[in-house]
Amino acid sequence: MRREPPTAATPHVSSGDTGRIMDFSNDPAFPLHHGGKIEVRPTVRIRDNEGLSLAYTPGVARVSQAIANEPALVHDYTWKSNSVLVVTDGTAVLGLGDIGPAASLPVMEGKALLFKEFAGVDAVPIALTCTDVDEVVETIVRISPAFGGVNLEDIAAPRCFAIETLLQDRLDIPVFHDDQHGTAIVVTAALMNAAHITGRTLADLRVVVSGAGAAGVAVTNMLLDSGIGDIAVADSKGLVTMSRDDLTPVKRALAERTNRSGLSGALSDAMAGADVFIGVSAGKVPESVVATMAPDAVIFGLANPDPEVDPLMAEKYAAVVATGRSDYPNQINNVLAFPGVFRGALDVRATRITPRMKVAAAEAIAGVVGHQLSPTMIVPSPFNPRVAVEVAGRVAAAARADGVAQI
Amino acid sequence: MRREPPTAATPHVSSGDTGRIMDFSNDPAFPLHHGGKIEVRPTVRIRDNEGLSLAYTPGVARVSQAIANEPALVHDYTWKSNSVLVVTDGTAVLGLGDIGPAASLPVMEGKALLFKEFAGVDAVPIALTCTDVDEVVETIVRISPAFGGVNLEDIAAPRCFAIETLLQDRLDIPVFHDDQHGTAIVVTAALMNAAHITGRTLADLRVVVSGAGAAGVAVTNMLLDSGIGDIAVADSKGLVTMSRDDLTPVKRALAERTNRSGLSGALSDAMAGADVFIGVSAGKVPESVVATMAPDAVIFGLANPDPEVDPLMAEKYAAVVATGRSDYPNQINNVLAFPGVFRGALDVRATRITPRMKVAAAEAIAGVVGHQLSPTMIVPSPFNPRVAVEVAGRVAAAARADGVAQI
Repeated sequence: MRREPPTAATPHVSSGDTGRIMDFSNDPAFPLHHGGKIEVRPTVRIRDNEGLSLAYTPGVARVSQAIANEPALVHDYTWKSNSVLVVTDGTAVLGLGDIGPAASLPVMEGKALLFKEFAGVDAVPIALTCTDVDEVVETIVRISPAFGGVNLEDIAAPRCFAIETLLQDRLDIPVFHDDQHGTAIVVTAALMNAAHITGRTLADLRVVVSGAGAAGVAVTNMLLDSGIGDIAVADSKGLVTMSRDDLTPVKRALAERTNRSGLSGALSDAMAGADVFIGVSAGKVPESVVATMAPDAVIFGLANPDPEVDPLMAEKYAAVVATGRSDYPNQINNVLAFPGVFRGALDVRATRITPRMKVAAAEAIAGVVGHQLSPTMIVPSPFNPRVAVEVAGRVAAAARADGVAQI
Repeated sequence: MRREPPTAATPHVSSGDTGRIMDFSNDPAFPLHHGGKIEVRPTVRIRDNEGLSLAYTPGVARVSQAIANEPALVHDYTWKSNSVLVVTDGTAVLGLGDIGPAASLPVMEGKALLFKEFAGVDAVPIALTCTDVDEVVETIVRISPAFGGVNLEDIAAPRCFAIETLLQDRLDIPVFHDDQHGTAIVVTAALMNAAHITGRTLADLRVVVSGAGAAGVAVTNMLLDSGIGDIAVADSKGLVTMSRDDLTPVKRALAERTNRSGLSGALSDAMAGADVFIGVSAGKVPESVVATMAPDAVIFGLANPDPEVDPLMAEKYAAVVATGRSDYPNQINNVLAFPGVFRGALDVRATRITPRMKVAAAEAIAGVVGHQLSPTMIVPSPFNPRVAVEVAGRVAAAARADGVAQI
């Protein structure tokens, strides 16, 4: 009846397209994923006809009728107040790129697992067959009634920007593209603590961001909202400046808000004397360029598995080094943010995630480190149970302050 | 952090539209529904960075890449092989009618609860904001990659027929409108046993079906597929016959296949001498009409909460009486069918539910009653654990026989 228990993974699988042989016989990720990583469970037990007649017909009809009469009751008598859609179109999955909806599913299930494990949120993975902006938006709107929030995931730039904006305009529940804002929140938290530990404030810092995709744009905007000194952004063609004629609307908006010192040219031109490097692009930065940064530099190389700046090399030039990897200190991991952000938003039935709620989340994450703060501990462990609690509390309070809380 | 525990329900809620006051302070259905009836839970525990790096980045990327290379692996390494969408547009919810998506949610959650409780299937409730046939179909197709089946629910006729047909043409996973086929399977099972206990076969019976909506159409078609003697269908305007010029295409097809004895007129005209009455319409049948049925009649009045034929009155004229209610003998309850049907279909990765699979399900349900068969026990209890096991086994075997099983 039930699913078979995990068994040994198929030892060899040949790729249909490339003929490449993948050997995962000794990779523990495969047995762990067997049958998927999540399930839907009842929260009430139905043991007899009486229970059946309450949880299902005829009793359920009275609850449905009550919601039909008084729509706000959907929050009290369904899982809507605790449920989130995790939606992708499979176009920018981790570092793998456009691998399509089915192949993105293990990531979406992983996200759902973390939502429940870290914040008690019920998350449903949805992988879409469509990638057109309007189709993605329309589809999510149509399936939204059962859910209290939308976590967009692994949708490629620049479509991710329009999808998020259009969706938030259509829905009265929070819409949050984690690749943008989750990353921005944790980077901001880490940079707050890195500045603190090196005796500076965010206003003192000149930052170089490598990458103008989902994460680069969101990190830059959030640091600007947080009062960063100056910030220059580079994409694969060099610094994003107003003099370029090849910019998307999103990059043009970025150029307008950044680079107050009027730099031009390549990434390396901005790196000379910079206080902070934030890599969200996978483009490698050579040691000769890293060596030109200011004293007490801060280097975040967040590409996985290969950081933009080799962390061992970075330590020769920087006061603080962070990566996206769990096997180095200071892992910049979105799991520090998204569970608590949605927990807090759901707890007050927020209609959206405001900039102030994101800053509150960053401050909460930074604050949890407390007296353990050191150059190798600028962010807390994801397994610190205070993280999601503190983030949720601060996000909920910020939602109330911004007038987007409904309870 | 977590959802609040169930508390006393709001004592009084006034309806915005009608001013009607609903008092549910003493209705146990409301505290039972508080916070919803289902949750999403991890099936693997993540306790440390090593677990996180397997279930999420970087380990999950290897699993996603494997699926990108070999798409069939999605069945092995995600929950797709065990998950079902429960989708409604909220247009025909129980006996409540078109109450919209939000108000339909308690029913969809109840369905998801029963899927897990009775057959270990992970079901996700989706309530759509759209009701247009093409929009419903397109939306379900777009969100389908994460799921191994689609259970359509509480979608009004005649749109439900087109939606199911179009969806099944587009998808290679089973699409099953429970209001049609779940009802048809259990009615057929019950009638098999009712015929047996009164010394007849299905071929001996002349049946009158009251109602030509989702359930009426499916019950009629399935009984025809099962070799019923003759069958006449009535809608609110009388018997569905070829001489009428007001028939929808679906009803016209029904008229072509039914009423071999050439009856015309009202429901009451067909009831005279009929062996079986099946009510799926809520239209009341008076005692004077019931009294004209043949000896050893079989009466199924399935409208909830008020059967088409009062069951106490029916006992005066019929050898076997069944209703949709749990407080009378012989409850015709879809929960006898849908969990096992999908369990069997998922177990063999069936691409659709064929007529033979439905008949197999009906035979399995009828067979479980065994030596307990009596006029007041023509279907098993929903809590008989053998029901879903037997249905799943027979459905899986029928899928193999029909060549729609993939494993």
